[in-house]
Order: sequence, then C-alpha cells, then structure tokens
Amino acid sequence: MAHEHRKHGPKTARFYIVTVSTSRYREKAEGKSPADESGDVAVSMAAEAGHIVVGRDLLPDDVYMIRRKVLELASRDDVDVVVFTGGTGITKTDVTIEAVRPLFDKEIEGFGDVFRHYSIQEVGTAAFLTRATAGVINGKAFFLLPGSPNSVRTGMRIILQEISHVLYLIR
Amino acid sequence: MAHEHRKHGPKTARFYIVTVSTSRYREKAEGKSPADESGDVAVSMAAEAGHIVVGRDLLPDDVYMIRRKVLELASRDDVDVVVFTGGTGITKTDVTIEAVRPLFDKEIEGFGDVFRHYSIQEVGTAAFLTRATAGVINGKAFFLLPGSPNSVRTGMRIILQEISHVLYLIR
Amino acid sequence: MAHEHRKHGPKTARFYIVTVSTSRYREKAEGKSPADESGDVAVSMAAEAGHIVVGRDLLPDDVYMIRRKVLELASRDDVDVVVFTGGTGITKTDVTIEAVRPLFDKEIEGFGDVFRHYSIQEVGTAAFLTRATAGVINGKAFFLLPGSPNSVRTGMRIILQEISHVLYLIR
Amino acid sequence: MAHEHRKHGPKTARFYIVTVSTSRYREKAEGKSPADESGDVAVSMAAEAGHIVVGRDLLPDDVYMIRRKVLELASRDDVDVVVFTGGTGITKTDVTIEAVRPLFDKEIEGFGDVFRHYSIQEVGTAAFLTRATAGVINGKAFFLLPGSPNSVRTGMRIILQEISHVLYLIR
Amino acid sequence: MAHEHRKHGPKTARFYIVTVSTSRYREKAEGKSPADESGDVAVSMAAEAGHIVVGRDLLPDDVYMIRRKVLELASRDDVDVVVFTGGTGITKTDVTIEAVRPLFDKEIEGFGDVFRHYSIQEVGTAAFLTRATAGVINGKAFFLLPGSPNSVRTGMRIILQEISHVLYLIR
Amino acid sequence: MAHEHRKHGPKTARFYIVTVSTSRYREKAEGKSPADESGDVAVSMAAEAGHIVVGRDLLPDDVYMIRRKVLELASRDDVDVVVFTGGTGITKTDVTIEAVRPLFDKEIEGFGDVFRHYSIQEVGTAAFLTRATAGVINGKAFFLLPGSPNSVRTGMRIILQEISHVLYLIR
Ligand SMILES: [Mg+2]
Ligand SMILES: [Mg+2]
Ligand SMILES: [Mg+2]
Ligand SMILES: [Mg+2]
Repeated sequence: MAHEHRKHGPKTARFYIVTVSTSRYREKAEGKSPADESGDVAVSMAAEAGHIVVGRDLLPDDVYMIRRKVLELASRDDVDVVVFTGGTGITKTDVTIEAVRPLFDKEIEGFGDVFRHYSIQEVGTAAFLTRATAGVINGKAFFLLPGSPNSVRTGMRIILQEISHVLYLIR
Repeated sequence: MAHEHRKHGPKTARFYIVTVSTSRYREKAEGKSPADESGDVAVSMAAEAGHIVVGRDLLPDDVYMIRRKVLELASRDDVDVVVFTGGTGITKTDVTIEAVRPLFDKEIEGFGDVFRHYSIQEVGTAAFLTRATAGVINGKAFFLLPGSPNSVRTGMRIILQEISHVLYLIR
Repeated sequence: MAHEHRKHGPKTARFYIVTVSTSRYREKAEGKSPADESGDVAVSMAAEAGHIVVGRDLLPDDVYMIRRKVLELASRDDVDVVVFTGGTGITKTDVTIEAVRPLFDKEIEGFGDVFRHYSIQEVGTAAFLTRATAGVINGKAFFLLPGSPNSVRTGMRIILQEISHVLYLIR
Repeated sequence: MAHEHRKHGPKTARFYIVTVSTSRYREKAEGKSPADESGDVAVSMAAEAGHIVVGRDLLPDDVYMIRRKVLELASRDDVDVVVFTGGTGITKTDVTIEAVRPLFDKEIEGFGDVFRHYSIQEVGTAAFLTRATAGVINGKAFFLLPGSPNSVRTGMRIILQEISHVLYLIR
Repeated sequence: MAHEHRKHGPKTARFYIVTVSTSRYREKAEGKSPADESGDVAVSMAAEAGHIVVGRDLLPDDVYMIRRKVLELASRDDVDVVVFTGGTGITKTDVTIEAVRPLFDKEIEGFGDVFRHYSIQEVGTAAFLTRATAGVINGKAFFLLPGSPNSVRTGMRIILQEISHVLYLIR
Repeated sequence: MAHEHRKHGPKTARFYIVTVSTSRYREKAEGKSPADESGDVAVSMAAEAGHIVVGRDLLPDDVYMIRRKVLELASRDDVDVVVFTGGTGITKTDVTIEAVRPLFDKEIEGFGDVFRHYSIQEVGTAAFLTRATAGVINGKAFFLLPGSPNSVRTGMRIILQEISHVLYLIR
C-alpha cells in the first residue's frame, strides 16, 4: 500500500512528546525532578532518526488537561507529530484514550492493531492490555502509546518507519 | 508492558461461566441434559489453573436475559471474572456482543485483536468471523468468547495467562 | 470456529465490484477509458475462483454516491457479495469507511484485523495506514478494501477463502 | 434569528412527498389503489402555497428501501425538500427515524420540539408519542412527519412557513 | 395522531415504582423508615386512576443497581409500566438517565419535551434543569421522572393520560 | 423542581462571553473594530443582573479554536459560566454545537427545549432553526446561544433566572 509514496513526505518531522503520569506530575509540582524514562525514550528515538523535538511536557491523568494540551498542539504551526505516553491501560485512572478519541478528525484505527501485533512478539498475551491508538487532528498526527519504556520503543519504531508517509497523506 | 506486575494480582480468581446457546437452552427447558462442551472446557481450564469456578449458567440468545445475567454477576461479591461463550458471530441471532458492549465501563479493545492473532494460527483467515471482545464492569473482568470448544480453549489460554494482572489493574 | 461449516454455503457467489477513485471517475466522465487495475484484480480473482461477477462500477470519493450504490446493491436479488476498493485510507478525501459504516446491520469487526495481519507480512508497519473493514447489510456481505492492487490481492485471498461460510452465516 | 433573511430564499421550492405505510404498500402491490390521505394533504398544501410537487411515492416500513429513497432524492437536481409521512411512532415496525437519522449531515434538532409544541395544542399530552424530526442531506431539507393527516397538516404548516429561509441557509 | 386508538389499550395497567435516592436508601439500610413522598405520589396517582401497583423499590444513585432493576423488571410478566423518580438532574451524582438510556430499545424522545412543556407552566425557566425521558424495553414502558413530588405529579398526569395508548402501541 | 434551592447558589457569578463570527473575526484581524451587538447584549445583561464579566472573546467558526477556548475556560479558576453566541444554526459553516457537544461531561438537554419554547413566542415557527443547547464541563456551565441579539436576550433571560441554582447543582 504505497511504499512508493514514502519518499514524498518530509524527511524531518517536528515532534512533541507528552508524558501522562499523575505520580510524576505531582513530584514535579513539589519541585522535584522525577525521572521520565518513557518520555526520554521517545525524545531520543525521534532525534536519532533525524527529527526535531520541539517540546515535551508532563501531565497528570486529567481529561481536561490532556484535551487542552491536544488542542493547543493541534493549533501550533511548528508541530507535525504528537506522541503521548501513558494512561492508555484499563485501570480506572487511565483516561488518555477517553480524553483524546472524541477529538480525532479521523481515527487511524489500524495503529492499535499493528502496535499489538509487534507487542505480542515481546510480551505475548499481555499485549491485549493496551488500548494504544492514533488519529488525525487538524492535519497533524497524534499517537497514544502505553507508559512503559518498552512500549514506547515498540511504538516509536512503528511511528518512525511511517511518519514521512503519514504526514504526506494527512496534510 | 508490565510483566513485573503480574505477581501483584490474586493467584486464585473466582470465575463464573455462561454458555449462550438457544438450542441447548431449549433442550434444558424441556428437561433434557444437553451437552455443553464449550462451557465444560472453560470450567475445567479455569479449575486446572488453580482458580475457583463459583457457578455456571446456560442462556438463550436473548439480549435482555444476557444483560440481566451480566448485571447480576457484576453485583456479586464472590465473582471476579466472567466468561461468556457463544453468540459472538455474525448471524442475525448472535447478540452477545450487542447485549454486553453497552454495559462496559471500559472496553478492553485489544482482547479481540490478540484473540484473533492466536486464532489465525489455528483456523487461518476464518479468524475474522469472530467478534470476541472483553471489558470491565464494576471492577470485574468480562470476556466474550465464540461458542466452539476450540475457540474457548484459545480464549481461556489468553485469559488465564493474564488474569492475575488484569484483576490487579481493574480493582 | 467452524471449518466444518464451510461446505454448507453456496460454492458460487455473485460478486459486484466497486472502485472508488475520484481521478478515474473524472477521466471516465471526460470520455476516457481510465485503467482500473484494482477493480480488474478483484474481478479476475473472483472469476478464477469460480464465482460470478454480476457487475462493476466506478465512483468518486463522494459520501452520497457511495451510500446510494450500497443501498442499490443491498436491494438487488442477484448480488451476494460486494467488494469496494479505494477510499479507506487516512487522507481527508478518503470517505468510503465513513460512508458505509453507518449502514452496516452488523460490522464484521475482525476483518480489518485479519486483513492487517496478512498485510503486515507484505508491507510491514505500513499496514496500520489502512482502515479496511467489512459488514453485513440485508443479508449480503460488504467488504471495504484499500485501493492498491496489492491490497486488493491480499483482501480477495481472505474473502475468497471464507465467502461460502460467510454467506451461510448471514442469510 | 433572522426573519429578515426569509426573503432571500426561493419563493418556489420543489417538494417530493413519501408516504411510509406497509399496509398501503401491500395493497398497491396487489394492484389496488389505496387511499393515501396523508400524502394527499402534504401534496395539496405544498401546491396551494405555490410550490411545485415534483413527485411522490409510497414505501413500506423497510429500513433499506427508505434509505435508498432518501439517497436517490438527495442526488436529484430537481428536488429541494423531501417530506416523509409515517413510521415515526414507537411501535416495533416504526423505522423511519432509525432509517434516516444516520444519513443526516446535520440534524435540525429543534424541529421535533417545535412540532410537538404545536401538536400539544391539538392533541395534548399525546404529542409525546411522535418522534418527528428533520435534517439536512446534501443541501436538501428532509422532514419526517407522523402518518396521520392531522399531524401532516401541523407539520406542513410549520415547514411552509420557514422553507424559503431553510433553503437559503442550507445551500 | 390517534386519539381514536386510545380505547384499544388495556384500561388497567400494572405499574412498578422505583425511587432513586442515595440518602433515603442509606436511611433504610440503617433500619429507619425514610419518607418517600415522591414514590407515594406515583403509587397513589396510579392507584386512583384504576391501575394496579405491583411493587415499589428504593435504590441509591448507582448505575449498576439501577440497570439491574431495569432488566429484572423488563423480564417480569406482571409489569407493564415502570416509573423511576429521582436522579435525572444535572449534579454529578445524578445517573438515572446515564444508567437507563443505553438499555432502551427505542427512546420515546418526545416525552422529555412534553414533560418540560407542562413543567414550564409550573416552575418557569427552571424546567430546563430536568432531563426526564422515557423509552421502551422488551415491550414495556419506562418513564424517568425528576425526584420532587411536584415533578412526579406533572409526569404522572401525562403518563396516566396516555398509558393505555402507549401499551397498545409497544406490545 | 426545587425553587427552594435557588437561594443556595452564589448570587454573583463570574461570566465569560464568546462571540463566534467568522466575518467579525476577520475584520478584527484586519485591525478594524467590528460591532458585536450580540456579545454586548450578553455582557450588559450579565452585568445588570449583578454578575461579574471576567472576559470576552471573538472567534471564527473553527472547530479547533472553539474547542481550545472551551478547554482553556474550563480550567480557569475565575470562571463560573460561559456563554457562546453564534454558530448554532443549520448552515454548513455553523460548527459551535459540533465543536462543544463532545466536550460536555453532562449535556443539559432541556435547555434547547426551554429556549425554543420562549423563542416560539417571539419568532413563531422559526424557532426550530436554532440548535441552542447547554452542558456542564469541569463544574462550569456552558451555554450555546444563537448569534442574533434577540436570541441572546431570550437566552440570557433564561440563564440569569436559573444560574445561581445551576451553579449550586453542578459544583
Ligand atoms: Mg453461536
Ligand atoms: Mg483490531
Ligand atoms: Mg453565525
Ligand atoms: Mg420542547
């Protein structure tokens, strides 16, 4: 399905990384410098692939704050791709999917599917516990990944492989 | 994604098994003792894995009766996991998905995905014919599996692998 | 999951193929004879498998025209299976999914899943870019495939493998 | 809310009237000429108000046939307004609302409201039994009225009062 | 819209009344006998109109318990009409609408409308604060009224006026 | 329905007024000072009723910008009530309802109803052309009114009558 198109998209995309973690958000609010390994992984993988990381942020599992961030990023001229990590599981406090899904212009329904396909090779049946997905908002690509560093690695590998093509398609 | 968490959940979960089959339900109503191989498979696999089966039931393909059973089980203090088998296909009379999905607090969207992944290895392309899924209701896990014994085997293997972790997450 | 049932369905199904492509539709409207390789692939694979192709058509990416065609075909006594190709991607102009999904009596949710499983083996991570799906309308099967010839090949292989069984189930 | 705009719309609109009634449809299919008082009322009120009635039809309470008609009319260049009568109640066979609502580009949510307001003055509390509504499809206005002649009179009075303005707005 | 039909329905309907109030439910659980003026109003108005009240219950604002009650009543052969009072407002704890709406086979959308029409005459603009509605489940009528005695009076007057006709239509 | 409660809410609420009008937004962007009579009406009616207007803004008919504003206001500690005017009609460019509705924690479904009730007294049948509604987001009340000054007057009269009670209920 269109390998031939991949060359058409931009080689350098501008990424913004958002970590969703109530515990780390609280530590930061208390003046501490919490580790954010998952965010770090996303940032360095994007950079190593030759992309620009224009910013990153840390949010709690709060529907309103997540939505506000999404819409702020959807309006920025200097952002092409947004990667969220965290809050995609099945606990009561996981709300990233619930917060972002209603804002998608078009959901990229197959992303969760393909993510779980590769995830099965790493964690086996546990792959069903993630509700990772992706979608388009205002011509930008939003990816919602689980919060563990390994999941971010798996997700970023998929994203980096196709992002040039994705941006070509959705603009 | 959190193999390390698996140890935190309960080692022994309390299962309730529901078979959905109009033909068997009618036979039973006529005083016969219809075989229920799929229900038997679910019961014995749960028991062999060290879990407790607190009950089982047989229902027809009836939206109201299925929903009533779901809500009765969602309120029981002695039930952790509910497994439905049957009624998840694409015939007009298959209504298990339609009955239960609107009652999910959170759908475990990836379950159907992972189920079909393993199903492909057994039945190939025919895996697309099942609409198996899962979800959380009132802190309990509900799994909706196809009605054939082989499908129940595939589904129970996935469930048993992760159930301790799932219960840890959703409570 | 019912290999044993496959024999029950009709061996010869009546297919109708619809290509969705605004550019080819315009060329045709201008009196040209645009190539339609994807439609050709679907037609010949169905015929080679012993099925009857009762018709084919070419439509633009237009929600109303796609829906109208779907409903016209859903009422025809001489059509069993409808295959759409094109308009299932993530660009703004891709509307086939949006047009047809609300018309499904029952969505065959697992089809996209299984399609992407086989697609991964051919195009790798790019498989997440398709939103292929399928569903039942008025006792007929509708499949929505991507627009590239390779995707149609992958999709048709899955469809042809199971179509007899599908028709047995949905009638 | 724009009384001043009313003058901008066309003075003469082209109406198409559809009566939904399984019993009358069957009579007609048997070669009889069933009375269709409700359809007659809609036709003559439109004509008396100076509009053109370009066609009328009789359909059974069938989701597929109703949808097919809606999409056929939505594509016609010579139709501005479509009025359905019948099938908007609460019996199991009433499917007009279920058939048409998913096809609306934009539902005119207030129409049912205003219809019931005037209906209360005629039938009192029984007004709650109708689910009349309206919506826009492809720049045309669709109104779904109950099947009794009195209801059609009430509905047509509201429609005729505002149709010029409505057409000005939705084109 | 069918005044002539009213005579066809049963003159005596079997009502079941459910009061939703967390505070009263707790008092009762503590062994007290909390007043339930709203439930009393519904019971006595139904009885005075010649109907039979087959039961009544008191529930907290709990989605699962409300749904379970709805499905239990939907399966009872001796119940025709169910009236809920309470939990239809706009506070965070009001969940009656959220609990019952997904269970409706068909929502009687006009009921809230007509209820508010009469409510405006009593409380003016405050009428917009109620989300009263009604619907059909398994051939029975479910009405969801606000929790104040005056609202129940207004709602029951509307219900009693039309219930014979409603039951004629939905069976 | 609780007139007795009205006294409990705050007597002074903090309003924020947003006018949605692409034409005025463009004029402002060009450095002009477009009249905004509807916004002025909302501001002065709120002030005359003793409330505080903490801010106002002018937006184009743009889904993303409207949503971003809604979420920014939903997070502000100094805002209790938000009134939007404009973009609630049935033209293609009217998107205020589409933008805000998915963000409601709870829709105040009866508001549109009651608004149209009073609107009928002023503009008759034309009242059906507005899709005015309201809802709660993060403990704040959002009202979506039509864009004409007369509609804003009608809407603000209803809002001001009940706002103290509404704020008491939703916090
Ligand atoms: Mg079955
Ligand atoms: Mg999937
Ligand atoms: Mg406007
Ligand atoms: Mg109303």
